[in-house]
Amino acid sequence: MKLIDLDTPTALLDEACVQRNIQRMQQRLDALGVALRPHVKTAKCVEIARRMQAAGARGITVSTLKEAEVFFEAGFDDILYAVGIALPRLAQVRALRERGCGLKLVLDSLEAAQAVCAAGPGLEVLIEIDTDGHRAGVDPEAALLLQIGQALQAGGAVLGGVMTHAGASYECRSPQALQAMAEQERARCVRAAQRLRQAGLPCPRVSVGSTPTALAAQRLDDVTEVRAGVYVFNDLVMHGLGVCRLDDIALSVLTTVIGHQPARGWVLVDAGWMALSRDRGTADQPVDWGYGAVCDEQGQPIDGLIVSGANQEHGIVSWRDGHADAALAQRFPIGQRLRILPNHACATAAQFGHYEVLGSNGALQRWERFSGW
Amino acid sequence: MKLIDLDTPTALLDEACVQRNIQRMQQRLDALGVALRPHVKTAKCVEIARRMQAAGARGITVSTLKEAEVFFEAGFDDILYAVGIALPRLAQVRALRERGCGLKLVLDSLEAAQAVCAAGPGLEVLIEIDTDGHRAGVDPEAALLLQIGQALQAGGAVLGGVMTHAGASYECRSPQALQAMAEQERARCVRAAQRLRQAGLPCPRVSVGSTPTALAAQRLDDVTEVRAGVYVFNDLVMHGLGVCRLDDIALSVLTTVIGHQPARGWVLVDAGWMALSRDRGTADQPVDWGYGAVCDEQGQPIDGLIVSGANQEHGIVSWRDGHADAALAQRFPIGQRLRILPNHACATAAQFGHYEVLGSNGALQRWERFSGW
Repeated sequence: MKLIDLDTPTALLDEACVQRNIQRMQQRLDALGVALRPHVKTAKCVEIARRMQAAGARGITVSTLKEAEVFFEAGFDDILYAVGIALPRLAQVRALRERGCGLKLVLDSLEAAQAVCAAGPGLEVLIEIDTDGHRAGVDPEAALLLQIGQALQAGGAVLGGVMTHAGASYECRSPQALQAMAEQERARCVRAAQRLRQAGLPCPRVSVGSTPTALAAQRLDDVTEVRAGVYVFNDLVMHGLGVCRLDDIALSVLTTVIGHQPARGWVLVDAGWMALSRDRGTADQPVDWGYGAVCDEQGQPIDGLIVSGANQEHGIVSWRDGHADAALAQRFPIGQRLRILPNHACATAAQFGHYEVLGSNGALQRWERFSGW
Repeated sequence: MKLIDLDTPTALLDEACVQRNIQRMQQRLDALGVALRPHVKTAKCVEIARRMQAAGARGITVSTLKEAEVFFEAGFDDILYAVGIALPRLAQVRALRERGCGLKLVLDSLEAAQAVCAAGPGLEVLIEIDTDGHRAGVDPEAALLLQIGQALQAGGAVLGGVMTHAGASYECRSPQALQAMAEQERARCVRAAQRLRQAGLPCPRVSVGSTPTALAAQRLDDVTEVRAGVYVFNDLVMHGLGVCRLDDIALSVLTTVIGHQPARGWVLVDAGWMALSRDRGTADQPVDWGYGAVCDEQGQPIDGLIVSGANQEHGIVSWRDGHADAALAQRFPIGQRLRILPNHACATAAQFGHYEVLGSNGALQRWERFSGW
């Protein structure tokens, strides 16, 4: 099986690039003296998680109980489920624990703490801390933090520590802003840990992270582990944040030219939003890549050429500056292959049931990925 | 199995509403005297296509060769593949034809016409017509139209007719504009058919359609069939176009409250963009629904409440006007179920591997759907 034999659209991984991305993050966190607990929600692929583990990762992070089930079946037993638990699914959590899965939950309310305790003793729980006003979590200075800690302790749960995710790092627009956000994420989460300990509560784990803050952090004192996910593939949003180069993007969508509108300067390809996803994450960044950056079949970016529009199974390729270049029709004839780099690797990968993985020798292998909850 | 037993997030269908939507479109096109060839790309579900067929549909439309394969296996043999063929997949097309599938292709270039003819005789082809400048297709007045028709005829293909899709109907902002777009779609496609016939070429099929134009068209003279897809579920974009009511939307995402940020007026739910999709199709409409309209567990819309933000597995529910209502935390406690109506049913449905179908007696059944190419 060679590249030429693949049907399109397909999700293509550059194996060497995946491996470089894994090494880079691991080496960085090794140097900062903290453990890496990679978030497997980006790839949802056992092969890739095994490579992360082989490189030195300790435990994994998941975004769904389905991920917890699949990765536990594949031999991973140290799993942090980093989304607040939907209470009706606590029975599934208990069943996983009883089968030997070291599943850890997160929560940020007294109601959830009480429900987790009522579901039976010994569940390990991290309290989610809000360090950036972005999403979930308890203010590190709030009385609620200690109340939740005490409720968990009194109710028979294992208080595993604190965790946070500075999703606001995606809105940073300079290396300095990213470094400051990384320090804010660290300092506020560490502060929450201190408050718990000062109140006589245990707080063994201090878990922070996002790919941008993990790559920007100058120090991670008093943090025990970092979670990051999208770094394994990288994408145009990460490139726009300045934390990766274009050639660090390991995931692309292989596509075929199916038509032209020369008068409008359009090349039509068979990768629409069903393949690329509807994610427009670069729309708010200084450089907007539309639905993706266009590369030749070998993966070399074609400067200025983007997927400017997308319908379900049609992508429209044109120059970013909008000029109608009739010559594109000759340059990219019908049947020609192109590769599209995604805005957001988590969203684009999720449109596919497997990856075609291109080795440095040109050979292909297939790695399965899964979806659902 | 009852609603209360379902894990979240899940794709929920109101069976009676699906059936009403199927009947409504069929009756409308029966009254206008044209055949309905429904687009199965929205639901990708054999159960639903069978109901369309039972209601009177003639043939189906698909957006991928995977759909053609699956629906042919399920007994559908009159299939229009409405996306320009990627030439490397012509062998798959021929194999389907040889197994007895009445698969029809579309194309809009001489290169594709020549390649289709070179792939072997007897493939039925419709020429795609551009009636709105929206995407693919040949200008109905262009010399190219006749050149393609002649190339197909001379090359041994079966010239099946012309087809068009007025995707620009999604940008119409009044019933009058929609009616005018429907007439433009009809008239320009009929004009292309006339030109082919005047040149001595056959043009048995004149195929037009989109859900908005199908529902707005005042007449469909000289059209032989209409294609429409999203009508089977409807969605907030269709509602914004004025072609359905909120209670005509058959698809919702069932979700569970997992947290609150009372000071920001946020209710956090376990339906993020992985469940709802990244589609923001109402962002350009007069009423922007964020990532979806919030309903109670029974499906009753809560006026003004929307999914204002979405991360991968977190949805943020708040008032559309942005006011921070701390009382939402009491009104929607942790563990409570809600339903979210989608912006774009094709995109949201694609995030799921099956539908949970709620009958009018409250019983549930599961209908499978598929993905991929």
